[in-house]
Parts: sequence; C-alpha cells; structure tokens
Amino acid sequence: MTLERVRGTVDYLPPEMMLREEIVNTCIKIFNRYGFGPMDTPVLEKWETLTIKSGGGEEIAKETYNFKDQSGRRIGLRFDLTVPSARVLAMNPKMPMPFKRYQYGKVFRYQEVKPGRTREFYQLDIDIYGTNSLVADAECVGVAIECFKELGFKDYYVRINNRKLLQGLLNYAGVRPDRTLDAYRAIDKLDKIGIKGVRKELEKRGIRKEVIKNLLSIIKVKGKPNEILKKVSEWVPGNLGIKELEELIRYLKAMGFKDKYLIDLSLVRGLEYYTGNIFEVNAEGLNVSFAGGGRYDEMIKKFAGVEIPAVGISFGIEPIFQVLVKKKELKKSRTLVFVAPVSDKQLIKSLNIASKLRKAGLNVEVDLKNRSLTKNIEYAAKKGMKYIVIVGERDLKEGKVTIRNLITGNEKRTNIKRLPNEIRN
Amino acid sequence: MTLERVRGTVDYLPPEMMLREEIVNTCIKIFNRYGFGPMDTPVLEKWETLTIKSGGGEEIAKETYNFKDQSGRRIGLRFDLTVPSARVLAMNPKMPMPFKRYQYGKVFRYQEVKPGRTREFYQLDIDIYGTNSLVADAECVGVAIECFKELGFKDYYVRINNRKLLQGLLNYAGVRPDRTLDAYRAIDKLDKIGIKGVRKELEKRGIRKEVIKNLLSIIKVKGKPNEILKKVSEWVPGNLGIKELEELIRYLKAMGFKDKYLIDLSLVRGLEYYTGNIFEVNAEGLNVSFAGGGRYDEMIKKFAGVEIPAVGISFGIEPIFQVLVKKKELKKSRTLVFVAPVSDKQLIKSLNIASKLRKAGLNVEVDLKNRSLTKNIEYAAKKGMKYIVIVGERDLKEGKVTIRNLITGNEKRTNIKRLPNEIRN
Repeated sequence: MTLERVRGTVDYLPPEMMLREEIVNTCIKIFNRYGFGPMDTPVLEKWETLTIKSGGGEEIAKETYNFKDQSGRRIGLRFDLTVPSARVLAMNPKMPMPFKRYQYGKVFRYQEVKPGRTREFYQLDIDIYGTNSLVADAECVGVAIECFKELGFKDYYVRINNRKLLQGLLNYAGVRPDRTLDAYRAIDKLDKIGIKGVRKELEKRGIRKEVIKNLLSIIKVKGKPNEILKKVSEWVPGNLGIKELEELIRYLKAMGFKDKYLIDLSLVRGLEYYTGNIFEVNAEGLNVSFAGGGRYDEMIKKFAGVEIPAVGISFGIEPIFQVLVKKKELKKSRTLVFVAPVSDKQLIKSLNIASKLRKAGLNVEVDLKNRSLTKNIEYAAKKGMKYIVIVGERDLKEGKVTIRNLITGNEKRTNIKRLPNEIRN
Repeated sequence: MTLERVRGTVDYLPPEMMLREEIVNTCIKIFNRYGFGPMDTPVLEKWETLTIKSGGGEEIAKETYNFKDQSGRRIGLRFDLTVPSARVLAMNPKMPMPFKRYQYGKVFRYQEVKPGRTREFYQLDIDIYGTNSLVADAECVGVAIECFKELGFKDYYVRINNRKLLQGLLNYAGVRPDRTLDAYRAIDKLDKIGIKGVRKELEKRGIRKEVIKNLLSIIKVKGKPNEILKKVSEWVPGNLGIKELEELIRYLKAMGFKDKYLIDLSLVRGLEYYTGNIFEVNAEGLNVSFAGGGRYDEMIKKFAGVEIPAVGISFGIEPIFQVLVKKKELKKSRTLVFVAPVSDKQLIKSLNIASKLRKAGLNVEVDLKNRSLTKNIEYAAKKGMKYIVIVGERDLKEGKVTIRNLITGNEKRTNIKRLPNEIRN
C-alpha cells in the first residue's frame, strides 16, 4: 500500500514551517501591542451551529465536512473562525466588552483544489466585539498596516470602502434595491475578471445598460481618501458611509498612519454580513488578497440572538507565506552550533560542551550518527549552521577546542571556558 | 435553538489561552535549543493510513472519527501525531538524517469524556528519527527535564525503564513469552489500580501465583539509577536493556543532568511499539503523566516499509495546564497601559499618545466605548493593566498627561514626550 495524503491537504517540513511560525508570531506580537488576547475554539462543531443561515450561507454549508459521530450526532468541521466565535459570545453573555481577541487555527472546506487553495488551511483572525466605535475599525486597519510592514512587505496597501456608501452609490447609479446583492457579486469579481467581465456579469443579471454604465464609472474610482470622499459627497451627499469613512481616516491619521491605504469604490468583500467599513490588503502587481475584513454589526445578533457589534480582519497565512517564501531563502534549521567529537572517545566531553552552550542560550546540535568529522561538517553546513565546534583529543588535553566558522572557513582554537563568549561575539 | 459545543470539546478564552500559549512557547524555546525544527501535518488523513495495524492498533481505530467526504473517499481525523509523521517519513525517503522535529497540533479521539479528558485535544511531540544513538534518548529526557524546570514545576521527576530489560525481568519472573503483552498491560495500570489491582489483573489473565509474586516484587523496585542497575544486573546479567539504561544515564550525566530522574521497573508505557528505553514525567503526589515517550525502532518499518529508528517524547499540554492554572493566577490580558480620554474631545490626542506608546514596544489599549474615566479605570483594573494614562484638557494645554499606577494608586503628571520612558522605568 502506498501512503499518501488526503487530496487538498499539505505537510509542512521544518524549512517551510519555520517561516510560517515566524509569520504568525510576528502578527501576534502586533496583536498584543493593540490589546488583543488569544482565544481557541474546537475544530468540531455541531452541524446545527455551522448551518445557521446567517453564518456562512448555503454555499459554505455544501463545502462543510460533516458526519455522524459514533453516537449518531451530526458533527461538522468548522469552515471559519467567525461562526465559532459568535457561538462563544452567545454562550458567554457576561463577557466584559469590548472583547478583543485573536485566533489562529485550521479550518476545513471541501472546495476545488488549486495552487494556493487547499481543503485544510490556517486562518488568523482578529476581531473587536461589543463596540460601535470606529476607533475599532481603525485599529483593525492599523494592525494590518503594522503587520505587513513588520513582515517585510513593501508595495502593500489597504483598500478601504464602506457598505453603506456602496449601497448609496448603487441607488445613485440606478440599481434597484432588490438587485443590490446581484450587483455586489458582479463587482466583487473585478480583480478576477476585469471591467469587461463585470459588465458581462451585470448584463447577465439583467441590469440595464445605462445603469451598468453608471456603475462601471463609479467603481473605477480609487485613490487618496480626501479626493475620493469629496467626489462621492457630490454624488450621494449626506450618505452615512461617507461619514464613517471620514471618521476612520481621521482616526488612522491620529494613530500616525499617513499612507498605505486608499479608498477604492470597487471593493465589496464577498460576505453578505458586512454593514459598514470594509478593508482588504493587496500588493502592487499581485492579484491576491492578503488580508480582509470589515464591520459586521448585525451578524452576531442574527446568529446568536445577542446584540454585539463587531469588526475584524482575517490574515491569509497562505498567500503571505507564498510571497515571503519567494523573497527570502528558507532557513534549513535554527541551530547555530554543531558539536563534533573527532572520535567516539570525545563523545562524553562533546555532550558536556553542548550542554554548556545551550545553558548560554545557544541552539546546539551534537553528532547523533557517530559520523566522521568530514560528514559532520557536511551535515552542519547543509543545515545552515554557522559554527562547528571540533572536539579532538589533542585540543582537549590543553582544555581547548577548535571553532570553525562554516561560512568564512576561519578556524580558531579556544579555551572551552571561553567558548560560549567566543561564539556569541 | 440553543448554541452549544460538541460533547468533549472545549473553548479557551484569553486568560486560559494565554497560559497555554506560554506553556507551548516555553517548550518550543527548549526544543530549538536542542535543534528540533517545527513540522505540520494535516488533521485529515486517509482512513487506510490511520488504520494500519502497526500504527495505533484496533483500540484506537474504534475511537477514530471517520467519514466519507463529498467524493466518497473515507477520511479520518488523526488520533496522534506519530502516525502522520511516519507517513511523512515514508513519503520523503531522502530526508537528511537525523531528523529532529517538533509538532504541535490537535488530535481527535471519540473516547469517554472525564475531567481532563476530552475528544479534541492538543499534542506537543518531539521525535528524533534515523539514529540508534542513545544520545538521542538522552536528549529527549534532557529536553523534558529542562521544559518542566522552565515551566516552574518543582517536584517533578522522570521515571525511566527499558523494554528489553522488562522483557528479561518477565522471563526471570517466569512469565511465558506469549504472555508478555498481558503482563505489560496489567503492570501498566499500577498507578491507577495499585499493587493489589495489578495482582488481580494478573490472576484474571491466568498467570500463576508464584510468577505473580515474583513479578510484584520486581515492579516495586525504583530509585537511584546506579543502585537499581546493580540490582537488576544480579537478576538478569548481560541483559541488553541494562546496557542501554547505563548508556542513557551516562549521557544524561555528561549533559549536566544530575537528578530529576530515576529508574522505575514498573514503568511500561502502554503502546506496543516501544523497543528500548522508555520514560515518563510525573510529579510528587499527582497521579498524572505529564509527558511520556521512548524508543520505537521497529514501528516506522512496520508502518511505512522504511527502516528508521526513532525516539520521542510527547508533552501533555492539558495536565501541564491543569497544574499551572492552580499555581499562578491567570492573567486577564497582556495589556500594560490603558489610555483614557477624559472626554470625547481628547480622543484624537489619546489615539496619538497610544500610538507613541505602541511604537515604544508597549501593549496599549484605548477607550473604545466612550466611557467615563471611572468606568475606564474599572475596566483597566479588571483586565489587570498596570497603568492608566489620563488625557485631560487642562493637562494637554501644558503638553502633559497624568499616569496613574493602578496597583499602588500613585499618580504623576508627566510631559507627553517623556511618557514612554516614564512607563518603562
């Protein structure tokens, strides 16, 4: 029998997994800076919970893995972290508000497998529950800007829009209220199918030519917040979405964020439950969403019966990984020093030396294969370690060892006592 | 409809989850120190993979969640991290050896739900593949000792035994070779059912009274390695397990580990696949296994057809958490400073100040609820924050704010420019 993975699942070996860990830890550091705390919920959820309409909708229910457990109860694997969090809020009505949480975990969707799209993948979300303050929206955008900066992204930017404004603009363009979702769905595909594609899509959905023309000229508009807000104020004066955008931008500026964001009237974000400001992180020349979110003030009430406004943003670990993996060379290991006994006789002393280096806070490996020095050097170099400590009989007699820098090839004999300091400096 | 969790699953809110994160990060730091790198495998595995006999055995197959996916393939949720790792090794025959990996992830078992036992739980494993060197065994024990020290455990110790020695001792006691597993299973229950219980268990399995008497006197033996090894050398001279234990102890000493471990001849570790040294971490007065593992040189060959010796240890996040949660008060948040505008007029300035403090590396929250100062102080104190920065109109006119230490109640007016330094010192 050949062993193989389930289709749409991935193994991550240490070189990839180290980078993934760094991505997540970088983001978590920023989350903590803004007062978000970690939360964890199960992968297994009751099928009834996952299929509440206001959660994921019918599309997602079809994609949800589900089964009867040994006792006959129907169970599903969570398809996102938003629905489980809504359940937690419903079950903890006394949670002090605002509640700022981050969550990192695997989610599962039986979906078409494509490059960059799997059936089991990680999500990393922050959300702020229990406040209408648009400072919370600004914090989500601010966290995103800081995360991508810290991750080493250069040409990234946050596109911002507002659902109330969008709704106003659709009216202004002549879209009938009952066609709002149709229009949203068509516009949402702009990145993928281009302006011509959106036109076709709108035509297919039976929207009038004249209305389409208006719409297409509106959704082309993007740029500096002040300019765009001035323009839309002429089209839909008094629209509440404009006020919300103005407020968001004012807070962002007060928080020291001067660029890295723009208003883009074509931004829709697929999910039906958004109610106010929405945002998405993109990068120049890449047709990928690296993070996305927005305000969803009605979803938890519909879902869980408790009135809790919410705003959040979800980070795409997979697309972030795909960009960074191309930028940087993957580390092979985190080990700095390899300790190599020249022969079996120096093994005990080598263990002793390795242990001293570890006590000094260094990451150290010792020969575990009884290999020749040549083979050990080869292994250590291949794993990207910087130093090899050669423990030989003659050196030992003088209380010494030889350190070789595997990058420069330089060698130095040193007293064992001074070894940790020699390596650190 | 009431929203509830699936039976045997748990939500972790931030106070618990922060402690869990700290436990895992503490262990990972030590793993890195010894050259272990992170690996990740899917939750979803093919049912055929999970039910290979040499993996978990029939008992575990019964407990494994499994279902047909939308395409009709039978899929199971992993019940441990060992079987998926064996699959990865089989699929990556060119992996450079030794391969030292750690893995942290959720596993799933449909089992009886009891305090501390759930159906979805985390495992944190280290394993060293591809070497027979008992230095690898010593590293697993050493990592365990260092982790528990770093986690703040005091009365913990590692019990050590050896399967080859156990086998020799069973022969010596008069247990027939075909009854080895029966005897193992009975002895393995010692912690739970006591010596009387083990006697009954052995009787039930049809082992002769005289043999039982011998066995019970042997498994009572535990203590300092040197003494125990001397004793068993009289009973089963030349036994290979004795040599392996001696070697393990010698390496541990060379690595600077002088106590925190003992030999306990009653230690069996349930799993059939162990072949050499086995170990388990316990603590004085607590009948719980905090970590356990051992050498399993045959399992991967039987499972995956490739000959790869292995040794590892698995950390019980749940029991570790249960001990630490009683020892320390749970933190409510990681936020150090709360910035409170006295009225809405100071919001913009407050955002500006919060942002400066974050830039200085501090974890900061700002009022998101438009609350009164009193309410904000209440919230910040409840969340365990140390400082509140009060941003008032009069102070601002002089470029100042007031810092209150929420623990001592002390207040100090300070120049905004000096604020980050004031708080850090």
